[in-house]
Amino acid sequence: MSISRFQAFSDGVFSILITILVLNFSIPAYTAGHLAAAVVNQWPTMAAYVVSYFYVGTLWLFHHDYFNTLTRIDRNVNMLNLLILFSITLIDYPMSLVAHTLAIRNTQDMRVAFILYDLVALFVSLTFFLMYVYLHRHMDLKAPHVTTDFYTTIKFDPLRSVAIYGASIIAAFFSIPLSALLLVLGILFHFFAYLRMSGNLRKAKVKKVPAQPQPSREEKK
Amino acid sequence: MSISRFQAFSDGVFSILITILVLNFSIPAYTAGHLAAAVVNQWPTMAAYVVSYFYVGTLWLFHHDYFNTLTRIDRNVNMLNLLILFSITLIDYPMSLVAHTLAIRNTQDMRVAFILYDLVALFVSLTFFLMYVYLHRHMDLKAPHVTTDFYTTIKFDPLRSVAIYGASIIAAFFSIPLSALLLVLGILFHFFAYLRMSGNLRKAKVKKVPAQPQPSREEKK
Amino acid sequence: MSISRFQAFSDGVFSILITILVLNFSIPAYTAGHLAAAVVNQWPTMAAYVVSYFYVGTLWLFHHDYFNTLTRIDRNVNMLNLLILFSITLIDYPMSLVAHTLAIRNTQDMRVAFILYDLVALFVSLTFFLMYVYLHRHMDLKAPHVTTDFYTTIKFDPLRSVAIYGASIIAAFFSIPLSALLLVLGILFHFFAYLRMSGNLRKAKVKKVPAQPQPSREEKK
Amino acid sequence: MSISRFQAFSDGVFSILITILVLNFSIPAYTAGHLAAAVVNQWPTMAAYVVSYFYVGTLWLFHHDYFNTLTRIDRNVNMLNLLILFSITLIDYPMSLVAHTLAIRNTQDMRVAFILYDLVALFVSLTFFLMYVYLHRHMDLKAPHVTTDFYTTIKFDPLRSVAIYGASIIAAFFSIPLSALLLVLGILFHFFAYLRMSGNLRKAKVKKVPAQPQPSREEKK
Repeated sequence: MSISRFQAFSDGVFSILITILVLNFSIPAYTAGHLAAAVVNQWPTMAAYVVSYFYVGTLWLFHHDYFNTLTRIDRNVNMLNLLILFSITLIDYPMSLVAHTLAIRNTQDMRVAFILYDLVALFVSLTFFLMYVYLHRHMDLKAPHVTTDFYTTIKFDPLRSVAIYGASIIAAFFSIPLSALLLVLGILFHFFAYLRMSGNLRKAKVKKVPAQPQPSREEKK
Repeated sequence: MSISRFQAFSDGVFSILITILVLNFSIPAYTAGHLAAAVVNQWPTMAAYVVSYFYVGTLWLFHHDYFNTLTRIDRNVNMLNLLILFSITLIDYPMSLVAHTLAIRNTQDMRVAFILYDLVALFVSLTFFLMYVYLHRHMDLKAPHVTTDFYTTIKFDPLRSVAIYGASIIAAFFSIPLSALLLVLGILFHFFAYLRMSGNLRKAKVKKVPAQPQPSREEKK
Repeated sequence: MSISRFQAFSDGVFSILITILVLNFSIPAYTAGHLAAAVVNQWPTMAAYVVSYFYVGTLWLFHHDYFNTLTRIDRNVNMLNLLILFSITLIDYPMSLVAHTLAIRNTQDMRVAFILYDLVALFVSLTFFLMYVYLHRHMDLKAPHVTTDFYTTIKFDPLRSVAIYGASIIAAFFSIPLSALLLVLGILFHFFAYLRMSGNLRKAKVKKVPAQPQPSREEKK
Repeated sequence: MSISRFQAFSDGVFSILITILVLNFSIPAYTAGHLAAAVVNQWPTMAAYVVSYFYVGTLWLFHHDYFNTLTRIDRNVNMLNLLILFSITLIDYPMSLVAHTLAIRNTQDMRVAFILYDLVALFVSLTFFLMYVYLHRHMDLKAPHVTTDFYTTIKFDPLRSVAIYGASIIAAFFSIPLSALLLVLGILFHFFAYLRMSGNLRKAKVKKVPAQPQPSREEKK
């Protein structure tokens, strides 16, 4: 099965998701002449947006580099990918709950919102784990220049992030700031895992296929 | 007519549709400190979302594999495809009605919502049937490795699902849970029909064109 | 300048536009047990949606076939295309006004809504006219198999539709149904103009480049 | 790293962004029979939409031409690009604030809205500047026909626009119309900078690689 339409569809979902996050910003209720204060009070929306954009953006970088290691896909990869995308579409909702409850500042409700965000993040990581396990068992799909080691190295990254999000859930019962910190750490973990993965990929490539200048898109057309 | 822009446009519509379904989630009305209960009460939104995402995802898988059996398209395929996409865009609305009425639990209104969802699903199936009939009569568009049998085998699948959705409509007058069950069965039917179709495609390919390792997207660029 | 990214961006805008039209459907206000009547009363939304989907779909078909006659684009085509897309994005708003005023049935307001829709349609046609005039003067961009006649034949189609939309505006002061009819006729005119254009393109191709079986997307990858 | 998926994702975000701007139009509150006046009073929404569409459209043209000068991208370009897209997604919010406050006409609030728009525009320019600086230092990514001079010439354009937006912020404390004028000038500056850049690109190409007729997309398939 060709990988290009698979990537195009995934890119479509990622680009829409990352863009509709911004729809969480809306004109605040304010008394005439006091828009400035009302906008400043929207900092939780901005904070939740920055973190979620960074999160979805990192997931896209992962998806982009990871599926470049495959030569082709099969039906199961296509279906697992739909599950991954499903889990990512869910981020929008707890993001708006976190922003909303941070503005109201009721501890009970903030706890619920952070736990929901954690649960979605945990679910996202599990869907990536399923994909990793599947591809680890289907080495016939991988590109020749990628070593089996590559898949083994990253295979347990999602479980590591699951542990962080689990800790954030437990922390939510004691301290909202600690839970928030752990959630952000989990997302940062993905980013550093991405940097490591893409570094490994570059090394694999340099070793196996000496880099060659690629013709520009322009020239090929 | 080239098939690539046709697929890109379809992928665009599919990816947007599957993503805007998630906009049905919104911050519930709740009294401070009771967000948890309010979120739990949104289970109908989650249920309707899971089913509809699975439905649109399955339709995309179908679209993806089915149009890979064509070498080129003509104007009529392009127009029939616009009709298919039209029918799929309608899913969003009955999905939100089902979620809304399941939360309120008025039997009359739930019946209306399920019947509307059934009618849209029935319409979606009929548009696919039109496409199947058209392509069955225009075998010049198909790729050489696909047999005519392939199109004959799947041709009546949409009508089978129409029967299930029809039964769901009739059931709605007696029992909402039964109607809901039949609706979900109809959507599951698509999924199993997809698995069978893609299995047939794989067999067809193995027979006619021995599978070859494909160059990765990376290398080609 | 390569035409592929130009087409990808346009397809993106078209597919989003045609999909967000459906967001005009929302759960109606209704008293418990009377959802059916409330949904039936939404027929103006459905009517406006069907017409607008058909309109944007036809414009996409045009865009698709027309830009397949070019070998490359230049900066001005890119900028004119942004103007075309701009005009098309405006359709969403008068569509919702037409649906809204048809539900309320105040003659004054319906008139305003239809005139606004006509004005947007008129603007869309004018932007296509600008593109046609520009490309008629830049025959170096066209594909070798397309004759200069092709561009001359369709050049004045947009002005013909402008006349129909102008008539619809005038009619709005006397009769809303007549104005609505003329608006729908204008959109149907685009569809028949499209059928004629794509017919001419096919003839041009048969004459100059004998049709050849194209390799499937699958095989190329 | 291949540039095509990078461009597809960016085009996705650009096309969604430019299309959701139109969601700022909504049916105005009006008394029956006076829709016309209510629509006319929405001129600030239209003005903000025209300017913002023109702004995002210009940024897309930039992005389109600029990244055509690269043969490949690396991880850092991918991440800087996510930052650029992030900054552009923010435009939607101050655009709606500007439209809203222009309708209400409270000087204090208009000032806040314009300053916010300026800050976002300033941020957008800075993210482009970061990208320019990075690519200026990584000439190995550029296509052979593009001269180093090309990157040097445009490198400081973003800082020039930053100066204009800075002036608009200062002006907002004295005169809203002057601030609005400077904001529009800043956006027009991008457009003229784009025209100059794409002109330089064309010259570079004519000098190094003599223009050749490119095969149409149709024929290649």
